[in-house]
Amino acid sequence: MSDNKATNITFHAGNVTREERAQFLKQQGLTIWFTGLSASGKSTVAVALEQHLLHLGVAAYRLDGDNIRFGLNKNLGFSEADRNENIRRIGEVAKLFADSCQIALTSFISPYKADRQQARELHEKEGLKFIEVYIDAPLEVVEKRDPKGLYKKARAGEIKDFTGISAPYEAPEKPEIHIRTDENSVEDSVRIITEYLQKEECYIPNTLKRTSTTHNSLPSINASIVRCHASGTNFS
Amino acid sequence: MSDNKATNITFHAGNVTREERAQFLKQQGLTIWFTGLSASGKSTVAVALEQHLLHLGVAAYRLDGDNIRFGLNKNLGFSEADRNENIRRIGEVAKLFADSCQIALTSFISPYKADRQQARELHEKEGLKFIEVYIDAPLEVVEKRDPKGLYKKARAGEIKDFTGISAPYEAPEKPEIHIRTDENSVEDSVRIITEYLQKEECYIPNTLKRTSTTHNSLPSINASIVRCHASGTNFS
Repeated sequence: MSDNKATNITFHAGNVTREERAQFLKQQGLTIWFTGLSASGKSTVAVALEQHLLHLGVAAYRLDGDNIRFGLNKNLGFSEADRNENIRRIGEVAKLFADSCQIALTSFISPYKADRQQARELHEKEGLKFIEVYIDAPLEVVEKRDPKGLYKKARAGEIKDFTGISAPYEAPEKPEIHIRTDENSVEDSVRIITEYLQKEECYIPNTLKRTSTTHNSLPSINASIVRCHASGTNFS
Repeated sequence: MSDNKATNITFHAGNVTREERAQFLKQQGLTIWFTGLSASGKSTVAVALEQHLLHLGVAAYRLDGDNIRFGLNKNLGFSEADRNENIRRIGEVAKLFADSCQIALTSFISPYKADRQQARELHEKEGLKFIEVYIDAPLEVVEKRDPKGLYKKARAGEIKDFTGISAPYEAPEKPEIHIRTDENSVEDSVRIITEYLQKEECYIPNTLKRTSTTHNSLPSINASIVRCHASGTNFS
């Protein structure tokens, strides 16, 4: 390639196409939409999958309560209209990430079929893959897990409109992937999704994708982080 | 590295840190916020810069009227409150892209200092770089360009509250980069910004960053796209 200097400016008229972007970044974008009851394991799986994809050199980014509810959607409450708008905005932002050739992972209860369908249509009408992952565990299991004590509060009436207790959860009828987290480990769950992506030719490499380069180096990863094979890791 | 199979699942407990992500993706995230009058050349420069960065293997994504106003912000109008909310959401989404280790390019008039300052603070409090680029051309120049005939309509009173004519444009006092598009070509403008990124150690490579890999191939770039050296390309 002749243009190998950053100071050698190269561009053509008009917007970069998605195909060009995919070629440059060696990756296609898509959205993986996790849905399931509170404490079903959505975030646990999404966090592990995000790390696994990054480890493979695949750009993936997770949208969750932490970075959405306290940022973009901090001006939304929990009325029905606000819940719909919450999911609508998440769908739109996920679409932007997918359009940028990243893998967007969204981790929200998203209990209503209509809202998830809307997010799906936003993607599909732009030719972007939308993979719905139903993270499923029986209510009695998630209620036993109850890591934040929310089910207990919901049963006591201290939280109103709590999905699964006092508000409906509309399970997906035909999710692309259905994972029972009372039967599968975190590792299993990540493997199921990764294998699906490979089967669907989502360009997930079999081997590490990016090689090291000699340009300005980045800081080393903190050595105190313990990287572990997660065989048999279970949902808390 | 021992984990070289996608089916060899690897993760650690907790979220991936920004440093880890940067290490995996060989890139740091930041936001380049273009501001300037209508027809000043914001989008022209942003489009060219996006392509140039992608060509270097750097993941960059542009937020502009086309993908924001008709998507995430389609439920906003042009009242003062809606304009503020428009820029607030753009700032939040740019921050998410920067946090994902992409380079977000935002191309909006964004006429109010307070709104741009809010977007800056969102980034800086999270330790993310925010680079304000003032795309500057005198009103008489942009009014002469007037590619969409908007200035003519604004002068005729057919468009109300038009920035520069009947609504204020608050020019940045200390932008990181100030480009006069009546004096610099598109190529010059892209070079100025790229050199700034390199000087600020934003990890923009001197040479092409990513090497080709052997995993599932992506479609070839359409051969009809003419890639040109843009020497002397001027603003229309």
